[in-house]
Amino acid sequence: MEIDTQNNFYGDKMYELAKKLFPLCRSITGKGLRDSLYILNEFLGERERERERERERLSIHSIPSGTSVYDWVVPDEWEINDAYIITPDGEKICNFKENNLYIVNYSEGINKELSLEELQQHLYSMENMPDAIPYVTSYYERRWGFCISHEQRKKLKNGIYKVFIDAKHYSDGVLNYADLIIPSTQNNSEEILISTYLCHPSLANNELSGPIVAIYLIKWLLAQKERKYTYRFVIVPETIGSIVYINQHLEQLQQFVKAGFVLSCVGDDKQYSLIHSPYENTLADKVAMHVLKNKVNFKEYTFIDRGSDERQYCSPLVGLPVVGICRTKYGNYKEYHTSKDDLNVISPQGLQGAFEAMQEIILNLEINEYYKSTTICEPNLGKRGLYQTINIQYAGSVSWAFLGYCDGKNDVLDIANILKIPAYELKEVINALKLHGLIK
Amino acid sequence: MEIDTQNNFYGDKMYELAKKLFPLCRSITGKGLRDSLYILNEFLGERERERERERERLSIHSIPSGTSVYDWVVPDEWEINDAYIITPDGEKICNFKENNLYIVNYSEGINKELSLEELQQHLYSMENMPDAIPYVTSYYERRWGFCISHEQRKKLKNGIYKVFIDAKHYSDGVLNYADLIIPSTQNNSEEILISTYLCHPSLANNELSGPIVAIYLIKWLLAQKERKYTYRFVIVPETIGSIVYINQHLEQLQQFVKAGFVLSCVGDDKQYSLIHSPYENTLADKVAMHVLKNKVNFKEYTFIDRGSDERQYCSPLVGLPVVGICRTKYGNYKEYHTSKDDLNVISPQGLQGAFEAMQEIILNLEINEYYKSTTICEPNLGKRGLYQTINIQYAGSVSWAFLGYCDGKNDVLDIANILKIPAYELKEVINALKLHGLIK
Amino acid sequence: MEIDTQNNFYGDKMYELAKKLFPLCRSITGKGLRDSLYILNEFLGERERERERERERLSIHSIPSGTSVYDWVVPDEWEINDAYIITPDGEKICNFKENNLYIVNYSEGINKELSLEELQQHLYSMENMPDAIPYVTSYYERRWGFCISHEQRKKLKNGIYKVFIDAKHYSDGVLNYADLIIPSTQNNSEEILISTYLCHPSLANNELSGPIVAIYLIKWLLAQKERKYTYRFVIVPETIGSIVYINQHLEQLQQFVKAGFVLSCVGDDKQYSLIHSPYENTLADKVAMHVLKNKVNFKEYTFIDRGSDERQYCSPLVGLPVVGICRTKYGNYKEYHTSKDDLNVISPQGLQGAFEAMQEIILNLEINEYYKSTTICEPNLGKRGLYQTINIQYAGSVSWAFLGYCDGKNDVLDIANILKIPAYELKEVINALKLHGLIK
Repeated sequence: MEIDTQNNFYGDKMYELAKKLFPLCRSITGKGLRDSLYILNEFLGERERERERERERLSIHSIPSGTSVYDWVVPDEWEINDAYIITPDGEKICNFKENNLYIVNYSEGINKELSLEELQQHLYSMENMPDAIPYVTSYYERRWGFCISHEQRKKLKNGIYKVFIDAKHYSDGVLNYADLIIPSTQNNSEEILISTYLCHPSLANNELSGPIVAIYLIKWLLAQKERKYTYRFVIVPETIGSIVYINQHLEQLQQFVKAGFVLSCVGDDKQYSLIHSPYENTLADKVAMHVLKNKVNFKEYTFIDRGSDERQYCSPLVGLPVVGICRTKYGNYKEYHTSKDDLNVISPQGLQGAFEAMQEIILNLEINEYYKSTTICEPNLGKRGLYQTINIQYAGSVSWAFLGYCDGKNDVLDIANILKIPAYELKEVINALKLHGLIK
Repeated sequence: MEIDTQNNFYGDKMYELAKKLFPLCRSITGKGLRDSLYILNEFLGERERERERERERLSIHSIPSGTSVYDWVVPDEWEINDAYIITPDGEKICNFKENNLYIVNYSEGINKELSLEELQQHLYSMENMPDAIPYVTSYYERRWGFCISHEQRKKLKNGIYKVFIDAKHYSDGVLNYADLIIPSTQNNSEEILISTYLCHPSLANNELSGPIVAIYLIKWLLAQKERKYTYRFVIVPETIGSIVYINQHLEQLQQFVKAGFVLSCVGDDKQYSLIHSPYENTLADKVAMHVLKNKVNFKEYTFIDRGSDERQYCSPLVGLPVVGICRTKYGNYKEYHTSKDDLNVISPQGLQGAFEAMQEIILNLEINEYYKSTTICEPNLGKRGLYQTINIQYAGSVSWAFLGYCDGKNDVLDIANILKIPAYELKEVINALKLHGLIK
Repeated sequence: MEIDTQNNFYGDKMYELAKKLFPLCRSITGKGLRDSLYILNEFLGERERERERERERLSIHSIPSGTSVYDWVVPDEWEINDAYIITPDGEKICNFKENNLYIVNYSEGINKELSLEELQQHLYSMENMPDAIPYVTSYYERRWGFCISHEQRKKLKNGIYKVFIDAKHYSDGVLNYADLIIPSTQNNSEEILISTYLCHPSLANNELSGPIVAIYLIKWLLAQKERKYTYRFVIVPETIGSIVYINQHLEQLQQFVKAGFVLSCVGDDKQYSLIHSPYENTLADKVAMHVLKNKVNFKEYTFIDRGSDERQYCSPLVGLPVVGICRTKYGNYKEYHTSKDDLNVISPQGLQGAFEAMQEIILNLEINEYYKSTTICEPNLGKRGLYQTINIQYAGSVSWAFLGYCDGKNDVLDIANILKIPAYELKEVINALKLHGLIK
């Protein structure tokens, strides 16, 4: 398995995919989410030769509204067709068809006239970012409401407003999510989990970037001839989706997941961020640190700073070895959860950077093993062409530096950390030592 | 259990108690110590309704002189009535009745005339603090002697001096100490130990402050409706007293004490100090650090710097989880062990500060438990009113931050340290989560 | 056991020994190594009274060439008598009899005329140190070659050169090494290992310094009346010699060696260096750090920086508690592995410094034990004269500071580290406490 970044810069293609997905009005349930999953599947491959490619496309699952999942209930499916406000002057504002952020996500339907005073209780704006529409949701309590820029809100005059929201909640609807298992080529049931979410409407970095990077990781992994691990990709609506997913797969996940990564806000080009698991001691933490610590503008966060689906995967009774991976972390860039988190926040370079970081993480996991030297004392590397036979000035070699720690107590990542080199640079050394029977 | 400092500032009352105790000539045995314990008991409550209040007063114990306690023997009881020197000019100096520090504590009696040269071998003064009378003791070798300011000593002229000490040692006497057990309201035999000492004569910070703060902690604890722990208060003469106490209660202490605190020099208002247990890894270390690290002018000391009864409680074969608590640590303020350690060194604010710090320590211990989440994945806090149901900008809550670590491996103090908040601020969160059955 | 440095400065004698050994042409096998071992033995004592002194001299062992040792084979014995080049002008250069570094160590014999172009492929020089002859070896691939200063090499003119090397390899030869066991006076089979190497030709710091310091440590240890440990001294050719030694003694070494030290480059006076074992957690690491951390210009290296026989002793399947000890570490001084590493690099002070550091290490090991207090609570030190009986200002004592940690969990080195004092300064305290039965 090799990083193919020298030949393949996918950033532009990823950005095109973002542009295609951007306009849809997604929520935790409903058509917007479903259509977005279909678009992702189209990207994964042509529909011809359906049967053969079955395993190379996302499986899209439907869970009935009302299903109990641990402490939660799968919410009703939401349908939204139109929404707007007519001002006393007859102006149509907060037009859903212009920007789906104008509507409080998961809002109830309404069709009513009311005073400005009454309307104000249903408006959401941000004083500290007066020209942006905020992204507001109300999933677990039924409300109706509009989001509006604070500038526009301040200009509203007294009088009678007409509010119209053509939205419905279906108790016989479903919640959708998608997953894809890419099997190990070595019949290894140990899994690497990559999870991301797709429930935000017209917002780019948070969150189209995660699913897009995931799709390209799927394409890259499917093209590999060898995969030590099985890879489990999960695309869900945030929170309730991962709870549903865990509810349906807990035993499998707890038994097989060796490391997992929640991708979120991976489209900008400013930073790299890691949100650690609670004790920062899992393989996911180790490999992510190993790769990310060398990135420019790397920021390390503790589990206290969590905010996405690592909350569920790492919760006390789930306890999976999962970390969060971001470029600039959610909540830490000013456009976050506003209409300003648009296609200008993400970039081909930003998406490509996240893609490459995840490739490095995967490559390091693929070569990671516990090796043990097979010889008492150092082996004679020189006679095998693994070391110079003429000795002038003192010179070590990566081979024997590596061998010195092959005592079965350290994995390749540990040794690479000791040697202060990227683990996947040890790949050739390991192959040569294995070929000569010097480690096992 | 609540800190009641907003309504109750006890500093002035504590200072009044210090003034009352100050003049008595205490030693490790004898009437001074005994009378001081009686005064403390008076403060604890009126003598009326004696029987009911029995458990709310110090029990005063007497151990016969000559009793073997481990490597030690309980010393003879000391009686001192008068002491002075008559100079060749007929002047009476080092008059015990003016200041009981003039006499070497535990001194033998004497009535004799001698030359200045002979006298000098029995005089103690401090060159580096020439206007102060030093505090000198000789418990384990019989001596007679006087303490004197270095200034005065230098003025002594040649000639015949008369020295008079009306003191006796009674081999049929006793050593006294006091203790008080305040039982848990939950029939919990686990104990919190608070130990302090009362064997110094007219010295204020070291050591009237410790017993005074202890007495007010007793009053506060007795007024509480709920106590998870049993509280054991111990007031002894230093060193020999704690050795006697351990000798009589070792099994009980080792079985039940969860955390212990030696109070010493807790009356000034300059610093807060913690003397750690040998490995700094006990519950006492953890809770004391948690509270004191946020105090202004906090100083942390290792067990090497120990000097009071933590020496005995933490000794290798005793091994109790005990730390020392001071404002400015003994030995670290210039007035220490001199006549300058008077009522000017301590202050109502200083005593109150130590009292409040100990209250915080106790409150943190009272709420400290290992909790485990009862739900797989995060619970739905919103539906229980524990979390906002409308989501605008990202906002965590203390409840879910806390829940994320409720895996049974961390106690409340650990989680509070992770969250960087005072543990007792979690009290309401814990109560709410327990009420909703979300932790157990 | 006492450091006797006040009376005995051995630096000059050690330096004299270096001068005597310097001219010999050593290699990993052959007469040069053997003769050097004989010289060392002469230094250890007169040959008279042979039998009695047998245990006080190095045992010199011979291992047949061709013997398999783990992944290696004992190389043929090398004999070198003469070597030189005749230039086209008839000048004799690279004359082995002037400097044995001119010949590639372990070179094949040759007697041939060839062009400068052909000759160049057999010449070794250093561009970055143009006036020095490099030290070059080719043990595991047969080559012939000459080492030459880069300055001289550049002056060579075209023409026919005569090269002559009178050298032979004997497949029926031997490899020699020496060892000496100095038994514990307490019948203690636990061992301290001191290993060094003697296979370099006319090079002073690397490596005559190690064997010379080892010989003086042997003399000093033999003169001691008491030795808690057995001491194993090993002098081998580097790498193959230690592999042979381990091959012949693995079980013994793994069972009995408590701490080991590889001495290399211990003759200069610039730094002190420690090369740690892989996990830096052995008794050897602990005692070496304890002693060396207080030296001026101390440098700490990880196991990655290893380069001498610690490579074998610490290899994964050998796993001995061994560290490397240097003054300036091999490879870290500019004269290393060149003709400039001559008698000017080492000094009496440099050798003496290493000798004393090793003495301190040994003394600390000798007093190192796990002690446990015998009394519950602190003992009464005053009544035994171990503490003042009159108490003026607060004063601790080393005795009770030490006693506070005598819980059987810390050895003397641990406690000394806690108390921040050199461990062997505790010797008298320990003896007094043992004498009074206060620790065991």
